[in-house]
Amino acid sequence: MTAEALATPRLIEADALIAEMGARARVAAKIMAVAPTGAKAAALRAAAAELRAQAPAILAANARDMDAGKTAGLSSAMLDRLRLDEGRLAAIADAVEDVAGLADPVGREIDRATRPNGMELSRVRVPLGVVGIIYESRPNVTADAAALGLMSGNAVILRGGSEAVNSNRAIHAAMAAGLEASGLPADAVQLVPVQDRAAVGALLRAQGLVDIIIPRGGKGLVARVQDEARVPVLAHLDGINHLYIDGAADPAKAVELAVNAKMRRTGVCGATETILIDRAYPAPLAIVDALIAAGCEVRGDKGVAALSAHVETAAAGDWDTEYLDAIVSIALVDGLDGALAHIDAHSSRHTDAIVTEDNETAERFLAEVDSAIVMHNASTQFADGGEFGLGAEIGIATGRLHARGPVALEGLTTYKWLVRGTGQVRP
Amino acid sequence: MTAEALATPRLIEADALIAEMGARARVAAKIMAVAPTGAKAAALRAAAAELRAQAPAILAANARDMDAGKTAGLSSAMLDRLRLDEGRLAAIADAVEDVAGLADPVGREIDRATRPNGMELSRVRVPLGVVGIIYESRPNVTADAAALGLMSGNAVILRGGSEAVNSNRAIHAAMAAGLEASGLPADAVQLVPVQDRAAVGALLRAQGLVDIIIPRGGKGLVARVQDEARVPVLAHLDGINHLYIDGAADPAKAVELAVNAKMRRTGVCGATETILIDRAYPAPLAIVDALIAAGCEVRGDKGVAALSAHVETAAAGDWDTEYLDAIVSIALVDGLDGALAHIDAHSSRHTDAIVTEDNETAERFLAEVDSAIVMHNASTQFADGGEFGLGAEIGIATGRLHARGPVALEGLTTYKWLVRGTGQVRP
Repeated sequence: MTAEALATPRLIEADALIAEMGARARVAAKIMAVAPTGAKAAALRAAAAELRAQAPAILAANARDMDAGKTAGLSSAMLDRLRLDEGRLAAIADAVEDVAGLADPVGREIDRATRPNGMELSRVRVPLGVVGIIYESRPNVTADAAALGLMSGNAVILRGGSEAVNSNRAIHAAMAAGLEASGLPADAVQLVPVQDRAAVGALLRAQGLVDIIIPRGGKGLVARVQDEARVPVLAHLDGINHLYIDGAADPAKAVELAVNAKMRRTGVCGATETILIDRAYPAPLAIVDALIAAGCEVRGDKGVAALSAHVETAAAGDWDTEYLDAIVSIALVDGLDGALAHIDAHSSRHTDAIVTEDNETAERFLAEVDSAIVMHNASTQFADGGEFGLGAEIGIATGRLHARGPVALEGLTTYKWLVRGTGQVRP
Repeated sequence: MTAEALATPRLIEADALIAEMGARARVAAKIMAVAPTGAKAAALRAAAAELRAQAPAILAANARDMDAGKTAGLSSAMLDRLRLDEGRLAAIADAVEDVAGLADPVGREIDRATRPNGMELSRVRVPLGVVGIIYESRPNVTADAAALGLMSGNAVILRGGSEAVNSNRAIHAAMAAGLEASGLPADAVQLVPVQDRAAVGALLRAQGLVDIIIPRGGKGLVARVQDEARVPVLAHLDGINHLYIDGAADPAKAVELAVNAKMRRTGVCGATETILIDRAYPAPLAIVDALIAAGCEVRGDKGVAALSAHVETAAAGDWDTEYLDAIVSIALVDGLDGALAHIDAHSSRHTDAIVTEDNETAERFLAEVDSAIVMHNASTQFADGGEFGLGAEIGIATGRLHARGPVALEGLTTYKWLVRGTGQVRP
């Protein structure tokens, strides 16, 4: 294992370690950038086979992480994220194989034009280059992120959480073996071999070696990465998502969408955190009652609190809180303009939705809400690359540059201009 | 003039000034984002008319800058960049009017899909938001950059060079008058009213207020911006561009392309700086002689220096130098692989070209050279948004994210996902 060999005192200095890994990644990235689709897909299928073949070793490594985690007193939620079993590992291998079946974005033509002087221009997709992925306790990210990065022709540098170090090393070994079995460079997927935080800092500063950093994890991790990085970051800090129930909403749809958007899974970034109800909407209490019946705590503004004794009055901070829990804040607003003003002031620009039967109102909402995903009569819980038909996702981005919303293979590419001439010179 | 009024001691503190301007720009950006194409075009046409109507005042302001510049001992090249006359000002107004005629990227659909559950997804282009432009002595940038920024639905904050302060204020006043005459917010184009460098620093740190910074100027400016900015930057540091003359090149094309790529205009970023000649190419001396005859100084590696007494031997640094002058470095290389290795080591990833009649070699070059623009049998001097049919350009980007190569209206937009449903909830 080359990566293991690097973890010697000689190279333990974080910047030197990342510089060495980055240089090898750049070499591998050049090979990956021109690797045919079939070779990349074969490598992922071989990696999936390795994950299955090496299941006993991976599960044994995970058991060591679980033991250490219990000794260290990790929470049961963290231990659950860390834990692998045969079913979870099989799902990880299946997901890697699924990525091998996705359409390859590399080489795809974005547009083409012939200039009056006969020059042919085309823009074609090319990989970003070297993608750094920084994540926490879930060992499946090692396989998922590597698969998406490799299929889009990039080299990846992975830095997982220290609590999953043995699991990550075992999964990484299977991914690297898949690459080597297919004749692609194992350096295209590298795992940072040391656990000290200085290595993360070095990765975040590795301009020229790393083209983009994608953090996968909680708000603390993402905030640190966004704050320290000198390399561009693709991420979302939080998902303070709104569901606006317009006066012209269908009441049955409104109740069903409110309960689903908030309660289907409360811990995902696409979950609704605030519901805005038009003062003209005739049945706000039914929405409040349905949420309470579904087990949700409701924190309302004065108007909502007056509807039901089961509603707590919201504090000012509630409108800017991502609960990621069975809690919702609800406010009454003055129609579309009131909703737009509230969303503009409080949305994290992840996903916001309107419920209405009035298409004109819906189209104004779709046009004027400046979020990565804007929905009409659909649950915010659909904010997901798989649900959008992208096949998978490396994350959801709320920044404005490069890629927005669910990011999958295409978001891991950029483009270049190709000019084909017959000797044209510029007058 | 609101901007002028801000230049009081009370608000001279740079961060407070930029925060105030940024807040007003964000409000204006929301209006610009949904402004119809016709309104934006009308504003630019009105601005062009104002530039023409206010020509005497603008030229008088420019005369004051020119006097101050002469007193300050500016070089003749700087004074020429600073100077306006009736013809140059008319060209500036015409350019603003030309931008009004370009296709509006905002609202354009990138792709669309219907999911199995009936949800309709589409990705549509939206403006970036607030664009900061930092530039040097050319006052035309005030009009050009504002026009491109506004037509793409953004608000712009301009920070021009102190030597052009009077010219910039006069041109900015005409642009703002055009916006107001068309009912769009004058705050959509603001000029930083103070000249101290602290304002530039504040602009570069204005995360959340400014979405992107575009530096326009020399390498010193771009390097400072790239180094200090916490806001994303779209730019190119330099254009160390290569022309590779393959063994299978047509000799007449090779000579014509070499002379044009290097000598048409030596000061533009698309000028070739290094020519690589395949050792198998039969007539390297003809290329050297043609360049010398065109007035170019040739610095060659040993093999090239041996061809002619008029060739100086290149120093190691020559291969990494953007001369922007009538100087070229020429090396002999071992075929395509030698050219690719040299380009990989020395290119600034701006524009690189191959001359060959062998299409297979050309396609390998196009695929493997990792630059923003890669050309076959065409002059690198075509690296320009106008020549690419984009109508204009705000600059050329050599970074890998968001936009690469010539950046015009589309590069000043991002996208959002729209989801149109009929009440779908996620199972």
